[in-house]
Amino acid sequence: MSFIKYAPECHFSYQNLPYGVFSTAANDTRRIGVAIGDQILDLSVVKHLFTGPILAKNQHVFEKSLLNDFMDMGRSAWKEARQTLQKILSEAEGVLRDDANLRKSAFVNQSEATMHLPVRIGDYTDFYSSKNHAFNVGSMFRGPENALMPNWTHMPVGYHGRSSSVVVSGTPIRRPNGQTRPDDTKPPVFGPCKLMDIELEMAFICGSRSTHGDPIPISKTEDHIFGMVLMNDWSARDIQKWEYVPLGPFLGKNLGTTISPWIVSMEALEPFKLPNTLQDPTPLSYLQHNDSYNFNINLEVSLKCEELPNPATIIKSNFKYQYWTMKQQLAHHTVTGCNINSGDLMGSGTISGETEDSFGSMLELCWAGKKTTDLGNGVTRKFLKDGDEVNITGFCAGDGYVVGFGECTGKILPAHQM
Amino acid sequence: MSFIKYAPECHFSYQNLPYGVFSTAANDTRRIGVAIGDQILDLSVVKHLFTGPILAKNQHVFEKSLLNDFMDMGRSAWKEARQTLQKILSEAEGVLRDDANLRKSAFVNQSEATMHLPVRIGDYTDFYSSKNHAFNVGSMFRGPENALMPNWTHMPVGYHGRSSSVVVSGTPIRRPNGQTRPDDTKPPVFGPCKLMDIELEMAFICGSRSTHGDPIPISKTEDHIFGMVLMNDWSARDIQKWEYVPLGPFLGKNLGTTISPWIVSMEALEPFKLPNTLQDPTPLSYLQHNDSYNFNINLEVSLKCEELPNPATIIKSNFKYQYWTMKQQLAHHTVTGCNINSGDLMGSGTISGETEDSFGSMLELCWAGKKTTDLGNGVTRKFLKDGDEVNITGFCAGDGYVVGFGECTGKILPAHQM
Ligand SMILES: [Ca+2]
Ligand SMILES: [Ca+2]
Ligand SMILES: [Mg+2]
Ligand SMILES: [Mg+2]
Ligand code: NI
Repeated sequence: MSFIKYAPECHFSYQNLPYGVFSTAANDTRRIGVAIGDQILDLSVVKHLFTGPILAKNQHVFEKSLLNDFMDMGRSAWKEARQTLQKILSEAEGVLRDDANLRKSAFVNQSEATMHLPVRIGDYTDFYSSKNHAFNVGSMFRGPENALMPNWTHMPVGYHGRSSSVVVSGTPIRRPNGQTRPDDTKPPVFGPCKLMDIELEMAFICGSRSTHGDPIPISKTEDHIFGMVLMNDWSARDIQKWEYVPLGPFLGKNLGTTISPWIVSMEALEPFKLPNTLQDPTPLSYLQHNDSYNFNINLEVSLKCEELPNPATIIKSNFKYQYWTMKQQLAHHTVTGCNINSGDLMGSGTISGETEDSFGSMLELCWAGKKTTDLGNGVTRKFLKDGDEVNITGFCAGDGYVVGFGECTGKILPAHQM
Repeated sequence: MSFIKYAPECHFSYQNLPYGVFSTAANDTRRIGVAIGDQILDLSVVKHLFTGPILAKNQHVFEKSLLNDFMDMGRSAWKEARQTLQKILSEAEGVLRDDANLRKSAFVNQSEATMHLPVRIGDYTDFYSSKNHAFNVGSMFRGPENALMPNWTHMPVGYHGRSSSVVVSGTPIRRPNGQTRPDDTKPPVFGPCKLMDIELEMAFICGSRSTHGDPIPISKTEDHIFGMVLMNDWSARDIQKWEYVPLGPFLGKNLGTTISPWIVSMEALEPFKLPNTLQDPTPLSYLQHNDSYNFNINLEVSLKCEELPNPATIIKSNFKYQYWTMKQQLAHHTVTGCNINSGDLMGSGTISGETEDSFGSMLELCWAGKKTTDLGNGVTRKFLKDGDEVNITGFCAGDGYVVGFGECTGKILPAHQM
């Protein structure tokens, strides 16, 4: 399909073409690229090839060091860009294929690139849209009868997160210090987090902005959803537990959130749509849509540590377990007139499947400390140790090709002495 | 003191010199200005006068359309800028006073200026640091014995807010639509917010950034606090009530938050320091500081409506009622390694005093709907009606001068039909 060759299991197929921001040792300017095979196509070098009706006059968006300006142009521009990319990367098209000089300057080996945050994240919101996860966590703390709060089946519950500490895959995460109260009969104590956890999530990234005061009706939400990334919402469970009533998670979550560097566009995910999860009760009309907007994205989490020769797979899940769709999340978020900006990050919430091996957090895997997770070779975990490295991967399996997200990884550094 | 003359009660005295961003009909470029009397000194015009050791080589920060770059230079730069401003505006100094051409281009009447958001707000956090407010709200919902959550006296409780919908004073606020559950025995309903409220708050704006992973020790917090503004944290109480368990306020707060346009520097507030509120129990050591960092700032809220000839004062409060200091808030916020950026906004939480007329929200004034607030002329309110305009003012009373914050105002527009 493309003149760039790659193995069938490669995440960055001709059908994928995810967007990212990279630099190299030879050129430390951050620039926009598209992944294909083990290569990156540097859009700052080939911007003159975007000659469609919308982009011809806006090629400068590909000179930027972040994707926000391009994404803010809207869905027609995104579609046109994808058409152009599929054309110039096609094996049938000579403009790049046959221009040895252009090819030399336009392609960079992924192994030689440093990836950066692809967007300036104005605001980051985290939803809580996996029913299994909400039920599991609720069961641990309030028992199965009261597990789901009464609002949960009526709206995609979410909260505002901290955008400053969102980092790109590979950035180490320092174990936080903080205030906890391990014994309810004694005063709180200060020290390193003892219950350091992950949350297996995905997130969508908003494309074009909306206007303050004007809701995005659910029928228009698709115009504002650019693409998706993998996300690890690192969580300090002991800090979170003591702080979160009544205003929600704060320091237990703002120590860092990791996203994968490549944004997979919604166009690339189109073939992997699944029927939406059946919703009972039927949501209010501002949350209703009939078209499918659920996606079959296989997710896997592995843990690498000194005690083991190879990383151990600890979770296998799938994005399809989401109860609320991204359309519903965005319609809900903006129904009050809250405006979005290009680059806003919207987390799915922890994605837990139905079986124990598909639970999306260590809190659930160890059932609040009651069990241990077996990593093989006699090594076990309840929560993360210093030096543990967690890697999330995700992919859609096409017919003879893959649309993948690459990796979302981070290693736990020991807490600062305070 | 200055060659610019003004009345003794003027908010923008020579001792104040707050920073803002403005434009005019004649010149729609947004530029940085300093308020004095009824004038604005346009820093883009006088940037060449900043010849101190730090700013001489960085005068370009005053050519920007936002204050972030200047603020990110750090506290020594802020002090040097203030010294320069006090010098060039002094009645003893001729450089501006005697240069008629420069004066003509450097000063703009405030009445001819449009004010804009002074900073790019990366993240917005709202604390909950008035004990009276937390007690009042807790009493209404859980009774006075359980009013304060056990964590409240141990940490400055807060939550991440929505930065995209922070707007500058004067921006109308549209009554939101949303999901509420007025009757617990029936399903939730959708429609315009019926309990539209204000929250009288102030906020500090972060100056220089910090590094991800590294807490700001409480002894260094002052290096990161640039100045303060007035804030109205508009709140849709019925939406908030139904959504906020367990992840905290979300849509009930993200419809809009208004701040005053002029940032009053901490240097200007220095003479108005008061002893900190006595804290019992003594907080953990990362939250301890001995120096005074409480401030005597008089606050007043008035409501203007069609039914009344003049605005009615509905609240008189004071910033000094805060239990937790801004230093404690910032040390707590970053103790996990959460990083801050120049321009981050940190709300105080609703500031309620001890007496009924000092409660900082209509929820408290009407005690959750059990009473009405008398506006005079037989007009009453529980919550806001469409067309109501709320104005917050604040000032410190010096000896023969005032350091004031100007106004923070917004008018309620009717909800969109949905
Ligand atoms: Ca989460
Ligand atoms: Ca508030
Ligand atoms: Mg996080
Ligand atoms: Mg608000
Ligand atoms: Ni933000």
